[in-house]
Parts: sequence; structure tokens; C-alpha cells
Amino acid sequence: MAEDKLPARSEDFSEWYNQLVVRADLADYAPVRGCMVVKPYGWALWENICDWLDAEFKKTGHVNAAFPTLIPMSFFEKEKEHVEGFAPELAVVTHGGGAELEEKLAVRPTSETIIGHMYSKWVKSWRDLPLLIVQWGSVMRWELRTKLFLRTAEFYWHEGHTAHADEAEAKEEMYRILDIYEQFCYEQAAIPVLKGTKSETERFAGAQITTSIEAMMWDKRALQSGTSHYFGENFSKAFDIQFLNKDNQLTFAQTTSWAISSRIIGAMIMVHGDDKGLVLPPRLAPVQAVVVPIFKNDDEKAKVMDVADRLFAELKAANVRVKFDDRDNVSSGFKFNDWEMRGVPVRVEIGPKDVEKGTVALARRDKPGREGKVFVSQENIAQTVGALLDEVQAALLQRAVEYRDANIHNVQTYDQLKEVVQDGWAFAYWCESTECEKKVKEETKATTRNIPFDQPNEEGKCVVCGKASKRKVYFAKAY
Amino acid sequence: MAEDKLPARSEDFSEWYNQLVVRADLADYAPVRGCMVVKPYGWALWENICDWLDAEFKKTGHVNAAFPTLIPMSFFEKEKEHVEGFAPELAVVTHGGGAELEEKLAVRPTSETIIGHMYSKWVKSWRDLPLLIVQWGSVMRWELRTKLFLRTAEFYWHEGHTAHADEAEAKEEMYRILDIYEQFCYEQAAIPVLKGTKSETERFAGAQITTSIEAMMWDKRALQSGTSHYFGENFSKAFDIQFLNKDNQLTFAQTTSWAISSRIIGAMIMVHGDDKGLVLPPRLAPVQAVVVPIFKNDDEKAKVMDVADRLFAELKAANVRVKFDDRDNVSSGFKFNDWEMRGVPVRVEIGPKDVEKGTVALARRDKPGREGKVFVSQENIAQTVGALLDEVQAALLQRAVEYRDANIHNVQTYDQLKEVVQDGWAFAYWCESTECEKKVKEETKATTRNIPFDQPNEEGKCVVCGKASKRKVYFAKAY
Repeated sequence: MAEDKLPARSEDFSEWYNQLVVRADLADYAPVRGCMVVKPYGWALWENICDWLDAEFKKTGHVNAAFPTLIPMSFFEKEKEHVEGFAPELAVVTHGGGAELEEKLAVRPTSETIIGHMYSKWVKSWRDLPLLIVQWGSVMRWELRTKLFLRTAEFYWHEGHTAHADEAEAKEEMYRILDIYEQFCYEQAAIPVLKGTKSETERFAGAQITTSIEAMMWDKRALQSGTSHYFGENFSKAFDIQFLNKDNQLTFAQTTSWAISSRIIGAMIMVHGDDKGLVLPPRLAPVQAVVVPIFKNDDEKAKVMDVADRLFAELKAANVRVKFDDRDNVSSGFKFNDWEMRGVPVRVEIGPKDVEKGTVALARRDKPGREGKVFVSQENIAQTVGALLDEVQAALLQRAVEYRDANIHNVQTYDQLKEVVQDGWAFAYWCESTECEKKVKEETKATTRNIPFDQPNEEGKCVVCGKASKRKVYFAKAY
Repeated sequence: MAEDKLPARSEDFSEWYNQLVVRADLADYAPVRGCMVVKPYGWALWENICDWLDAEFKKTGHVNAAFPTLIPMSFFEKEKEHVEGFAPELAVVTHGGGAELEEKLAVRPTSETIIGHMYSKWVKSWRDLPLLIVQWGSVMRWELRTKLFLRTAEFYWHEGHTAHADEAEAKEEMYRILDIYEQFCYEQAAIPVLKGTKSETERFAGAQITTSIEAMMWDKRALQSGTSHYFGENFSKAFDIQFLNKDNQLTFAQTTSWAISSRIIGAMIMVHGDDKGLVLPPRLAPVQAVVVPIFKNDDEKAKVMDVADRLFAELKAANVRVKFDDRDNVSSGFKFNDWEMRGVPVRVEIGPKDVEKGTVALARRDKPGREGKVFVSQENIAQTVGALLDEVQAALLQRAVEYRDANIHNVQTYDQLKEVVQDGWAFAYWCESTECEKKVKEETKATTRNIPFDQPNEEGKCVVCGKASKRKVYFAKAY
């Protein structure tokens, strides 16, 4: 398989993506409509993502817990917008233990309702607040048009659910989490996301404020990559989360929720990948470096293997996540293609000539071919590879920043907007009316992505209707 | 709450357990029949269990992956014994996205079937074997009589699923995993389990061999605490997992599966807990030590807090999982009870006299009261507490071993057996017939637990029917 080429990214981006996911061994199609199997290589990537986020959440006082997978259907009815948003997407359990259930249960699409129900039991006094709980797991939203990682009925995520004594603290939490998400994307995933507030239409069902991070894919479409919501009292009223405040008054708690899902793997593929396959940022790559011994006969093999073994051991001892590819049934060329397909950031090649000269060839995945190849001394290999991994990490981010900035255009007129969103993002003043937003969507398929927190000091005019406008928004076609 | 006493363990073990789980803040009842909510404190304990096991599995070449939560009903039909075992316990999804499904889906009760289906796609050559995959998550088996951690409709676990080229390797895997489980229980959970083979009646649905680890609870009932199964070709034939072996012949793979669930938390409660609440083994305890400053007025408080802060910082810097209880709305006595209920292994008390003398009081949870209290120097506090934690860990295991050994009785006659299993375990020769096993169960409620691998050299006579027998078995009432 790995010797056939992928479709060119520039010719059929969608098919390039579909083939890449399977051939890089990240995931497979499940025998359940709309679902995926995340294969060990893909899951190891997801674990690295989760580990970093989990550590950050814990540092900021959050704790993990587990709530049931099944939620009584009546719970959804308690928050009007929430049920409207989620009812059409539910998978419903009607039978258990051979009998029909008195009350149907939904496989959770998100857990605000059942967690709200428990919080109402747990929160009695201001001393019980804030309650900062994260759940790691999967959720189910009925989807039939599957795109692995981007759109599947079941997907993996964490969902944070917090309750606070007052509005300021709850909003601070929402922004704190969005900052953690932003930091994760820049520093770990090498994806330069843009933070901002979603429009009313694009808000989470039941939220008073939804903030998001938005990323530009290689095809210039946007991908919402994480969200953090402020609910005010919507869910605490629906689920009766009340506490005695310091003045001994019964008060509704202020709640938030937030999530990043396995979709972020789709973002990494579509931001960094190329015609040879996946390109992974070193900090998250399950395999950061692969050692490939190169030989044509047993004599050469004997020479090469000892040195390759030693280099592998040195890298491993320095905590580089390294593989030794000693397969004897495939050629070196096959191995190169294979590890390129899987996006391993650095390849360490060692042949008979390298053994003689005390050198080794390092090939960086982000610059395939001669351009990305250097010959270095075998001495201090772990240090050299470590420095190269840092360089690759930084280069991926820089490339993505430049690409993003080159493809976001400030637009003044509606004609400009219509042209720009065909192949890029438009950044424009908008009056924040649903009418203008709807018009853009109908006429161009572009939606508002978010309204950045940092805004120009001047007022402007809505790019659609010309009314006075205080804030600019990103318009783009989105996944 | 924490000031009311628990029911005495010796008077109402079941009610003692039920109250302890909730009051130690491990779990709560969910609003979904048969399900539980694992609270942050209980989940932190579960994470420590998972982290140790996950690291061991990875060291032995296993990788993690994720398969769908929903499984087509037809998959269960493919293995005759499997469907008989699991069909009565399924929760069934009949509707998705507002429409009735063409094929009903079960919320997974275990994943042999869907993983078998995927393995048949992935395994083509002997080079693809062994396949050593673990899935972490939850499963659903319809249960209406809930006992938190011990018996709930949804529970948490890992399930290992492996495929091998030959029988010897598959059996070796089954035993390797059982050894890891045994090591976990002895070294981490301080539970002295007994390894052995399950009888035919007690086997997993579809297994050729089921091995288990069995633990004795404080009420002397047995708890099956982990299982490791060898399937032979049962599932590879049902799901067509075939590969070309080294001689280029199409061969069915040999498979295994194995699991430890969140039930093990129930075991830890029932082995180590006492009338004051939970007692946790230090290696798994989410909080290993708690620092409690003791003062009666502001003068004393000023004196004590500085030292308490410093001791806390030293413990934290030495990677002790430590809490500082600086609550000002409850008494020291309340705090002592509270942390005892939660099973924290070591309490560090610091009062005004300690400040003057340069001492600190350490109270160990496994020996409540004066017996377990020592006054030590504040110098090298981290080292002193570290050593005490090791001592507590070892003492818990030793106490459990002694208790177990004192309550397992070698029996020669059926009358002895009947008496012994009323309040202990019987270890006896058994002819391995289902008839004799059934008779014991009907007349005493005791079941065969397992047949240990190490057996006496001599033959004996079945304790029930008197026929010649080669192997002894444990009989006990079980959860």
C-alpha cells in the first residue's frame, strides 16, 4: 500500500484526506454506520494530546470524574434551547435486559444535563464552589456522512463543566480555558488558531456566550477547533443548582462548559499534511524519530546494525520517542515512504558509508527531499536530534502562521467579501445582525467564524448593510 | 455528615459498605437506574490504578485503541456461547437521529465481537501478529440491583484483546497478564489474590480457558478481581480472523481477552476499610498525606501556620501527594474524622507545642488512635513520611495475607466443607464435575472460585462424591 502515491493534495483535497487517515494508520471505518475505529497509532497521538491538556487542567485546579453514558430523555426537555439543538441527533436506548424501558435513555451527546442534575445535589453552600470537573470519554451525535476525525457519530473528547458563585468568576473560567486551548494549539499542535466570540446563530445550544478557537486548513476552509461556553443561569435554573451565598441568600450558580475533541487530529492533518502523507508536530508525535539502517548485503548489514543499535539506544535513553525499523522484508525506499506517510518528524538513516565516516543522515519530514537532509556526526546524536525536533516544531508553526496571514483579507465591500471567501477568509466589519449573517451564508456559503477579542480602535461600517459597526468578524467557509 | 458514625462493619457489613462509598466521596447514585457517578476522589483513585496497569501493558508491548461503543446486534449471534451469555444483559439502541434503525445496536457489554470483526480486516500475514490491543472505557450490562463499584449497569475497565499465531503464544499471553494482575494486587492494592483456573461453569461466555485472581473480603466472601481468557479459535472462526503463516498456509489466529474493572475499588474498600471508613494503600491513594494545623486562637494560628506551610511545601517538593487542610469553618476533630473517612494513609498534625519543640505528630490510618501515632522531628519530614507510607503499604498487605490465610481451611469431608463456607473459604479436592459443583452451590451457596496452578503432589478424593481427584479448588460464597 505505502508504495502507491496519495492523490495530490492540490487536486483532490477531500480524497487526499480520506486516504491519508487510513494509510497513515490513524483510523479505520467501523462496521457501525457513522462510527470510526481509532487505531493504535491514532490513539497514541490522541493520548499525547490528552496528557498535555489533562496536566494543564489539573494545574489550574480541575479534577476528573465520570458520569453515566446514558441520560434520561426527560433531562433534555429541561433547557429549551438545548433540547432543540440536540434532540434531532440522539441515539436512543429503548430496551434493557430484554424489556422495554419505562423511560427512554439517550446515549450522551454532551453531558450538561446529567452533570447539572448531580451538581444540584452537590452544591449547597458557597463553600462548595467553584466546582471544576472534567470528563474524558466519547459522545454520540447521529451523523450519517462520515469523515474520519472530522465528523463521526461517536467522537472522543473531554468536556469541562464548572459551577461558580458569580458571573465574573464564571466568565474568567471560560476565558482561562480558551487561553489553555490557544496555548495547546500554538505550542503543541503548531496550529495558529484565532480566539473570539461566536455569533448568536453559531452559539452552543443553551449558552449565553460561546467563545471558540478557529483554525485555517490548507484548503483555506475554517475548522472550529475548540469551544468554551458561559451559560449564566440557564442550566442552573433548569436543574436547580442553588447555593447559600456568603450573605446566606439562596442563589443560582453560574456555569460553564468547554471541549476539544478528536477533531483536532483532523485539523493537524489538514494544516500540516502534504502529498507524501501526514506531518506531525514533534511534541505530539507518537514516534518522533525513526532509525533506518541501510544495507545491500549481509556484510553491509553487519557493519550498519551495530551503529544503528547504538544510536537507537542513545536516542531512547534521552527520552526521544524513537522506533528502530529493522524489518527485513521491505526495502529502505519502502520504509522511507512508510514513515513519511505516518508523519514521523525526523528520520535517522545510517548506511555503510556513514559507518566509515562516523556520520549519520537526518531527514526532516517537514522538508521532504534533499532540502531537508543533513549529514551530522554520530557523536551527541540525542542532542542533535533533540535540537532538530525543536526546529521542526517551530518551522511548522511559522509556516502555518504565514499561510494563515497570507489568506486572511481585510475587506471593505460586499463584492470583495464574496470574492475573498471563495478561496480565503474575509475580515470585515459586521453589524452583528442575524439578517446580514444569513445573507452572506446563503450567497457565499461562508459563515461568521468568530469576533476576535482584540479589535481596531475605530468604528466601521457593516460590510453587508453599511450600518455602523464596532467589531470585525472573520467570515469563511467552514467544516 | 462526617461527624455521624458509620454503621459498625461487624454489625451490618452491607450497609457499612454502602454508606462508606458515598461518605468517603468516592461515588454517588446516578439518576439512571443501575448506574453510578464516580466522583473526583474516586476517579483519582481509578486513575492511579489505570496508570500503573497502562504502564505495565505498554512495557510488555501492548498498545491502546478505541472501538465503537455501539455494536450491531447480529455480531453477538456469531459466537453461540457468547450470545447466550450476554444477550439477556444488553441495553439496545433502536432509534438514531429521529428514525428507527434498520439494525439494532447494543451498547457494548464487552468488545470481543466488534474487535474480532476489525481483526479479520487487519490480520493477513504472520507478520501482522501478535496484535496486542487494549481499550480503556466503560461497558454496559443491564443490572437492576445496584451496589456501587461492585455491581452497576455501567462500569469502568480496560479490556485487552490479543491475536496470536499459535496456541502456546496465546496461552503465554493469558498467563503473562494474570501475573501482571497478581503483581498489581499485591504491590499496589495490597490485596493478596489467589491465581487459578475457573471451572467450566464459571468460564467467560465463549472462552476455552478462563483464569482469575480471587480475593477474600473482610466478610470472608470472595470477589473475582480480574480475569484473563484463552479463546483458542472460537472467536477467530466466528469472525474469520485468518492469516498466512510462515509456511504460507491459511490459519486461524488464537485469541485472548482480559480485564480488571472498577470493581477492584470495591475490593480495596472491603479488604482494608474499618469502622472509621476507607483505608487506602499509599501507592494508590489520591491523597497520601494531609497536613492539619491545630490551634485554638489567632495567636496560636499565627505560630502554627508558618510551620505547617513549610512542612506542606517540603512534602509536595518530595512528590508526596499531599493536601493542606486549612479550613477555618470546622474543628480539628471534624477534620480528623473527615480524612479518616477518606482513607488518607498518613495525617501530619502540627500544634503550638509542636512548634516550640520542633516536632510534629504523624498518625497512620491503618492503626487508628494512640497506637498509630508517633511524634517525630520536623527535620527531614519528607523522608520520615515517605518511610511511614512504605510501612503502611507493607502492613496493609501483611494484615490481609494473615486474614486470608487464617480463613482458608483445608477440608476433607463434605460436612466440613458445609460448615467452613458459612464463614470462610474451603480448599478441597474436587472431581471437576459440574454435578458436584452444583450440589455445593445449591446446598451452601458457595461456588468454586478457582483451581490454583500450584497443586499438592498427591492425589485425593473429591470432597463431594469421593471420586479420585488430582486438583484442589477453592469453594467460597462470592460477590
